[in-house]
Amino acid sequence: MNICSYSVDDYMRLVKSFHGSIAPGLLVGGYMVDLAVKQMDEGILFDAISETSSCLPDAIQLLTPCTAGNGRLRIMDFGRFALSLYNKESGEGVRVTLNYKSLDEWGEIKTWFFRLKPKREQDTAALRDQIVEANHDLLSLNKIVINKDFFSGGKSKGTIKICSGCGEPYPENEDKLCGACKGINPYSEFNGSLIPGARQLKIAGK
Amino acid sequence: MNICSYSVDDYMRLVKSFHGSIAPGLLVGGYMVDLAVKQMDEGILFDAISETSSCLPDAIQLLTPCTAGNGRLRIMDFGRFALSLYNKESGEGVRVTLNYKSLDEWGEIKTWFFRLKPKREQDTAALRDQIVEANHDLLSLNKIVINKDFFSGGKSKGTIKICSGCGEPYPENEDKLCGACKGINPYSEFNGSLIPGARQLKIAGK
Repeated sequence: MNICSYSVDDYMRLVKSFHGSIAPGLLVGGYMVDLAVKQMDEGILFDAISETSSCLPDAIQLLTPCTAGNGRLRIMDFGRFALSLYNKESGEGVRVTLNYKSLDEWGEIKTWFFRLKPKREQDTAALRDQIVEANHDLLSLNKIVINKDFFSGGKSKGTIKICSGCGEPYPENEDKLCGACKGINPYSEFNGSLIPGARQLKIAGK
Repeated sequence: MNICSYSVDDYMRLVKSFHGSIAPGLLVGGYMVDLAVKQMDEGILFDAISETSSCLPDAIQLLTPCTAGNGRLRIMDFGRFALSLYNKESGEGVRVTLNYKSLDEWGEIKTWFFRLKPKREQDTAALRDQIVEANHDLLSLNKIVINKDFFSGGKSKGTIKICSGCGEPYPENEDKLCGACKGINPYSEFNGSLIPGARQLKIAGK
């Protein structure tokens, strides 16, 4: 069974080159996207949600026109191994997830999914074989409608203002500060200066 | 001037195929990644942060080994057109942003960046030419150190539990619920049933 327009081998080569390794989550994810795409009417413009930041965003980006940077893939890191595709106009779509109740038949997949053994003790080849053999049989498919608040299309980003906190440009919203200045700051040092309030980083070897 | 290992034309072809269009943000973003990568010592394993969800995540994914799904690209949607690459071990790295104060020399780039005219009134060809001509001259480069809390490496994801809210598997943490059940739910209908508490979606034409 192909994965969208790719043979399994071609898809695995693509995954290796983009994701860095042929992670089992990308292989299961490939079949998840394949099943979801098959439910969407041809010619429909669809957007995507990944309910985890692990693996599935890359399967979606490799197999659909939805990417993290073009606004068509929303990564909502719920920790659930699920993805949705939905019609941009109506919000109607499908959600696909791995049906963990089916895993008793597929020992290697169960061991991987529930992390029952350390990765080095898992049988990578047998795991891949089981994923390819099981393909859609592992998956649950549900119809969904997306909450209107989550539609990505049609929202104006507003004009660009200069943040009164950091002095950098950001898209205008109701706040006077950019997202970094009103929220979480990932930097503890900037140009050699400690950032007040940021927890100091211990640098290995210093 | 090349963009990492690509000629500008080859990079634009790659962008078109992945991102869907040759967005100016991907072209500026290409030079931003190029400048940042050149600061990292060869052989250093680095991770990335994008401070916006627009465009820059795709430039990073196309030009570095960091992707949304492999844990090496963190998208923090502050609305700032900036990206950072940092050494996974030490947290030390660089942040590159578009220096908006340099834009008086580059009228088309200024018009695009500050959204001074509707997109259809912008001169796409002149904008691309200016971005290619300006390349690194548009950019600001700063040294940064990443707050230890943001290091993606080395964290255990914990074991997989079944969420007591939705009955789906999720990585164990201190909460008894997955991210969706304790947070925001993107679905207003699931399998044809309204989800209690979710705002109902008006479907066009129904």
